[in-house]
Amino acid sequence: MSLSKNQLKLITSLQQKKYRVKSNLFFAEGVKVVDEFLNSNLELEQIFCVDDSLYKNGENVTVISEVELKKISVLKTPNKVLALFKIPSSKLIKTDGLVLALDEVNDPGNLGTIIRLCDWFGIDQLVCSKGTVDCYNPKVVQASMGSLTRVNIVYTDLETYLKATEKPTYASLMNGENVYKSKLPKDAVLVMGNEANGISKPILKLLNNSVSIPRFGDLKQAESLNVATATAILLSEFRRLS
Amino acid sequence: MSLSKNQLKLITSLQQKKYRVKSNLFFAEGVKVVDEFLNSNLELEQIFCVDDSLYKNGENVTVISEVELKKISVLKTPNKVLALFKIPSSKLIKTDGLVLALDEVNDPGNLGTIIRLCDWFGIDQLVCSKGTVDCYNPKVVQASMGSLTRVNIVYTDLETYLKATEKPTYASLMNGENVYKSKLPKDAVLVMGNEANGISKPILKLLNNSVSIPRFGDLKQAESLNVATATAILLSEFRRLS
Repeated sequence: MSLSKNQLKLITSLQQKKYRVKSNLFFAEGVKVVDEFLNSNLELEQIFCVDDSLYKNGENVTVISEVELKKISVLKTPNKVLALFKIPSSKLIKTDGLVLALDEVNDPGNLGTIIRLCDWFGIDQLVCSKGTVDCYNPKVVQASMGSLTRVNIVYTDLETYLKATEKPTYASLMNGENVYKSKLPKDAVLVMGNEANGISKPILKLLNNSVSIPRFGDLKQAESLNVATATAILLSEFRRLS
Repeated sequence: MSLSKNQLKLITSLQQKKYRVKSNLFFAEGVKVVDEFLNSNLELEQIFCVDDSLYKNGENVTVISEVELKKISVLKTPNKVLALFKIPSSKLIKTDGLVLALDEVNDPGNLGTIIRLCDWFGIDQLVCSKGTVDCYNPKVVQASMGSLTRVNIVYTDLETYLKATEKPTYASLMNGENVYKSKLPKDAVLVMGNEANGISKPILKLLNNSVSIPRFGDLKQAESLNVATATAILLSEFRRLS
């Protein structure tokens, strides 16, 4: 067995969102990440691996060469296996707890880190604006690792979602209320904005409360915290007393 | 004016630590980052830019072509300017406040994020073990942005430093004391470990206290927090009541 031309074409096309949507497939790479995905509820489509002792040989397993793996991999150092999975359907879940919402977060590494944080802090629902980077983008998949399978992620119109929610809503801002002095509820929606522009105006208008992480030191010249870093600190604040 | 062969050779050599040490130079790129460095105490060696209206024309400014910039840049999208600066000398400063120490942090992006965090949280002193990635590595420079000029960073033998300090010391561990329940002092050394291996045994033996960030949710399958993310949360905890 080896990689067919059609397989090569399909897999490289999956780097782009429109082809992932069309085929309803995405891929994950590397032994550790693929193992986490195989042990989840995700439906496997096909495994491509360079070592036939790694996976039980079945019709789902195609053994390929290192050269072929390099052609389909997006990693600097391809790691033995690339696997295709079906993109699961997702819908908003009802939760009494904290919801995190992202308004146009662009960077795949940031989204990957944020998904890991949701997993760590037991966030039931991650709501992404439609313009937020796709969580099945290969860079997000690799950065979020197994956490992608454990966090319920929905892409939806954020304005509609926020208008409908009955939870208190919190905007993460540069000049909001000192988060250390805020009495934070267990049940809330925390909204994080775009890396360069923050939360967009139409969204901001819908939010009841704001929080900021104070800056320390004499000079206070530090310009900003990265959105993933700020998310880490704010989720920790919402959780620390629960 | 254009880029000489010797300049090209020098600048590309500065991607490697041994040549940075030898020449006592490092480089920064992009209009915003270079501006922050020009407005600091750093000593400028030479500016290479593609637009002669950007900087006052002096003997320190060399106008080069876009093609030449691409040859010396490490950015995917080179941004108008690359500048060489002298590496400043650094030494341990006495401080009554919180010190952050890194034991073999490897990833340049993580170190860059941690330097920005030190700037934000007003950490006077960042102590790095000798094997920690060099803060003048081009990727660290770009990730830390202007914060690199505002944080005092020293590379030293971490065992010697920890044996000499009179401050209480805290190890960031997976199974340490719940940080939310710990009474943290203002004056302390917080030690973060390597991405894969955590804090090394000889260092761990020297530390009096430990802290951990609790994991939430029903399943608790999240594997770990990234070292930069964990640093963000722990620095926030040390600072929140000060």
